[in-house]
Amino acid sequence: MSSELEALIRTIPDYPKPGIMFRDITTLLQHPKGLKLSVDGLAEKFSREEIDLVAGIEARGFILGGAVAHVLGKGFVPIRKKGKLPHVTLSQEYALEYGVDHVEVHADACKPGQKVLVIDDLIATGGTAEAGLNLIRRLGGVLVGAGFVIDLPELGGAERLRKAGVHVESLVSFAGH
Amino acid sequence: MSSELEALIRTIPDYPKPGIMFRDITTLLQHPKGLKLSVDGLAEKFSREEIDLVAGIEARGFILGGAVAHVLGKGFVPIRKKGKLPHVTLSQEYALEYGVDHVEVHADACKPGQKVLVIDDLIATGGTAEAGLNLIRRLGGVLVGAGFVIDLPELGGAERLRKAGVHVESLVSFAGH
Repeated sequence: MSSELEALIRTIPDYPKPGIMFRDITTLLQHPKGLKLSVDGLAEKFSREEIDLVAGIEARGFILGGAVAHVLGKGFVPIRKKGKLPHVTLSQEYALEYGVDHVEVHADACKPGQKVLVIDDLIATGGTAEAGLNLIRRLGGVLVGAGFVIDLPELGGAERLRKAGVHVESLVSFAGH
Repeated sequence: MSSELEALIRTIPDYPKPGIMFRDITTLLQHPKGLKLSVDGLAEKFSREEIDLVAGIEARGFILGGAVAHVLGKGFVPIRKKGKLPHVTLSQEYALEYGVDHVEVHADACKPGQKVLVIDDLIATGGTAEAGLNLIRRLGGVLVGAGFVIDLPELGGAERLRKAGVHVESLVSFAGH
């Protein structure tokens, strides 16, 4: 399956800056089989887990996370960029290459003890994912795991999360940045 | 169905500014039945149409559109805010209350003749939706219709699109702004 998915991902050299090989999943998403294999593949990876809610990280994590929640018959929670949610929020800082940014979640997005799976399209250094996972924990949610279509293992994010005890799954892995 | 969905939508008075009743669908999305009824309801409204692709408008339209595409077994196309897509794009301007903004789509997001359904969470004045529909048409796509969970009919967007020949569907309608 992963080679089929890999073939549907477009690589854009030197984007957003020289030396970066950008992995573009829009070509995968617009292919009926690509979307199906990605969503069903992520759901399958966590099929042995008990799940109450699926959280997706803005913005590409919304496309996959909403579909994974729907296929599992669960609810969906958006983890958003700063200032986008209309009600009372919890905010979590994370480091960027230069400076910091924040992700936010509604304070009533999950009840203590609810089991939450976090979904995003790609894990690189894992900074955003880690901030999202922290938000779920701060709400009292039980973290089931984190699922990504693409892992860039050389950037170490997946390994860092696993060392912190998180069940991490991905469908495709690319060498390099 | 619409009364069940309506009960799951949170109204936040005076957000983002005095006089506006903000319709917050996060409470609906995080409810398993709310997400299921929304996604299946939108898919059902267009069940008589032939569809090749589902396009979702950033960001809440991604949550619903990805799931609608998956349940229909079709591909998904993101209509994004300016500067977010990594490859060659088409851009479409739309009016804001003060000034203008843009939405963009990849130039290869759909092939001429492909039948496209556009999904977003809410239609108010319809400016963003109309810009999104224009992008699909400019790519040569055949517009199947536009589906929204919420319609605010007093703001006239749905009526304007219908007058322009678009098949518009929504699941819940709220009086006022």
